[in-house]
Amino acid sequence: MKKIILDLDTGIDDALAISYILGSPEVELIGITSTFGNVVLEQGIRNDLAITDLLGHPEVPVYRGQSHALTADSFTVSDISAFIHGKNGIGDVEIPDSKRTVETDMNAVDFIIASVKKYGKDLTFVPTGPETNIAKALQKAPEIKDEIGNIVMMGGALTVCGNSAPWVEANISQDPEACDLLFRSGAPVTMIGLDVTLQTLMTYEHSEQWRGIGTPAATFLADMVDFYIKAYETTSPHLGGCGLHDPLAAAVAVDPTLVTTLPINMKVETEAPTRGRTIGDNTRLNNSKKTMQVAVGVDVDRFLNEFMTRIGNLAASAK
Amino acid sequence: MKKIILDLDTGIDDALAISYILGSPEVELIGITSTFGNVVLEQGIRNDLAITDLLGHPEVPVYRGQSHALTADSFTVSDISAFIHGKNGIGDVEIPDSKRTVETDMNAVDFIIASVKKYGKDLTFVPTGPETNIAKALQKAPEIKDEIGNIVMMGGALTVCGNSAPWVEANISQDPEACDLLFRSGAPVTMIGLDVTLQTLMTYEHSEQWRGIGTPAATFLADMVDFYIKAYETTSPHLGGCGLHDPLAAAVAVDPTLVTTLPINMKVETEAPTRGRTIGDNTRLNNSKKTMQVAVGVDVDRFLNEFMTRIGNLAASAK
Repeated sequence: MKKIILDLDTGIDDALAISYILGSPEVELIGITSTFGNVVLEQGIRNDLAITDLLGHPEVPVYRGQSHALTADSFTVSDISAFIHGKNGIGDVEIPDSKRTVETDMNAVDFIIASVKKYGKDLTFVPTGPETNIAKALQKAPEIKDEIGNIVMMGGALTVCGNSAPWVEANISQDPEACDLLFRSGAPVTMIGLDVTLQTLMTYEHSEQWRGIGTPAATFLADMVDFYIKAYETTSPHLGGCGLHDPLAAAVAVDPTLVTTLPINMKVETEAPTRGRTIGDNTRLNNSKKTMQVAVGVDVDRFLNEFMTRIGNLAASAK
Repeated sequence: MKKIILDLDTGIDDALAISYILGSPEVELIGITSTFGNVVLEQGIRNDLAITDLLGHPEVPVYRGQSHALTADSFTVSDISAFIHGKNGIGDVEIPDSKRTVETDMNAVDFIIASVKKYGKDLTFVPTGPETNIAKALQKAPEIKDEIGNIVMMGGALTVCGNSAPWVEANISQDPEACDLLFRSGAPVTMIGLDVTLQTLMTYEHSEQWRGIGTPAATFLADMVDFYIKAYETTSPHLGGCGLHDPLAAAVAVDPTLVTTLPINMKVETEAPTRGRTIGDNTRLNNSKKTMQVAVGVDVDRFLNEFMTRIGNLAASAK
C-alpha cells in the first residue's frame, strides 16, 4: 500500500488535504510533518493534531518541522495569509484542542529520512507549504533523492501568473532557496501549481452538501471552507469559487492520472526582481532526462467528484 | 495550396526562414512584410530583396512595414542584436543589392489585410520579429482575427527563461504592447518560443554540408550561419550551437505536426518589473475556448532533417 507523508502549514486547504488522504482507503497516511507558512509552526502543529482527532484518526503522528526559511531566522504570518485562512489558520472556526502532543522522539526532517529508508519507492511525500523540511532532509541525506517514490508538491506557477506577485506563488515565496534546492536535487517531483489548482474550484453549493451531513467533522469542514470562499470573493472575484490547491496535490499523490504533465527540469529564481519564480532551467533544457513533471492540465470534473465523495464519506463516518 | 506571408526583421535566422519556405514546394510565399528588430526597417527591406534574388526567387514581393513599436516614435538596433546578426543583419556577409525595390502600391499592413480577405483560411502569417505589423492590421481591420488561417509566430518564452532578460524574449521586448494586442485579440496564434527553438540547434558540421554544395547561395548561407554560431559561442556557450528560432516557426507553418502544443489563453505583461513576459492570462484560465497554442515539445531530429534537406536543395538549385 502506498505510504503518504503530508508536509503542511495548516491552513484551510491543508486541512482539506488531510481530509482527502484520510478519505482514501487505498493509501496510508503514516505521518504529518509540520512547517510554517499559512500559520506559524506551533499553530500548524495544533491544527494538525486537532483536525486528525476530529476526523476520527488520532493514530496519525505529527512531527515538528522547520519554523522559518533556510535563509531566515524567524517567520511572521503575512496579513494576506491571515485574511485568507483566518487568525487560527482554519477560518477562525473553533474545534477542540487535541489531548495528544507532537512526537518527541524524532523531528520532521529525521522522520522524512527514516521513512524513505523504510518504505523507499512506496513513499510519496506531499509538501503543500514551503519546501523547507524536504530541503533540510536532502541536505542531511542527499541519497534519498534516488530512493523516494515521488514528491507531489503544491506550489509554483509555470504557465500562469502567481498569487503572491505576478511572478511568484505564495508557497514558493516563503522559501525560494528551499524549493530551488529541491528542484535542482534530481529528486522526482510532480509540481501541482496554480496552472491547475485555479481550475479546480469549490463553491457554497459544495460546502452546503457537507453541511447537510450533520456530523461535527462535516460542519467544521463546511464552516471552514465558507470562510475560504468568502476570502476568495475579495482576492479573486473572477474565479467564482476557491482554489482547491492542497487537496489537488493530495489527490494526485493518490491517483496521478488526474492531471496531465509536462516533463521538464525546473529551477527557482532567487534574485530580484523575480525572486521566487518557478521556471524551466535553460541550462538543462536539452538534457534527455527530465526529473520533474509539471501539471498543465487537470480532469476537473473527475477530481471534484472524488473530492466531494471521499471527504463526504470521511466526514459522515468520523466519530 | 497554403499561402504564406513572412513578416521579418531580417536577421540571420529570418534569412533561414525565407530559405525554408522557398525550399518547401507545398506552400507559396506570397510576400514578405518587413519590420524592425534585428535591424532597422530599411536594412531589413534591403536584405529581403537581396536574399530572395540570391535564392533564385525574385518574384517574391517585399512590403514596407512599421519602423518602430506602437508606443515609440523611433527605433535603434541594440548592441546585442548587432553582435548576434552583424551590422548588416546577415553576419556581415556581402551579397549583391537587388535591382528591385520595395512594393509601392501597398504597405505591409494593407497587404496583410488584403491577403486575409483574398485567401482567408488558406493564409498563414508568420511573424518572426516584433508583432507590430499584425497588431496594426488588427487595429485597422479587427475582423481578420476570425478570417485568417493561422498566425505562427517566433517569439516569447513560456516554460523557459528569456534571452533579453530572464522574463522576456527578444522579439517581444521590441514591442510588448503589439504582442499583447495580438494575444488578446482572439486570433488563432501558434507561439514558437524559446521553449522549443533552444532545442533545435545548428552547428559548424551542418554549415559545412551547405558549403560543400558550392553555389553562391549555399556559400552565403554557410558563411552567414558561421557568424551566428560564433556569436552563440559567446552568448550561450552551454548550448553547443545556434538556436534555429525563425526557421522553426516557418517549418511549423508548413507542417504543424513538428511540435506538440499546449492550448492556452496568453497575455503579455507590459508593466515593470516583468515587462515583456509572455504568460497565461489567469482571467481567461477557465474559458473552455483557448485561442492560442504554445509549442512545448519539438521533434528535433525530424525538423533538423527537413531543415538541412529543404534548404540544401534550394541552395543547390538557386541560379
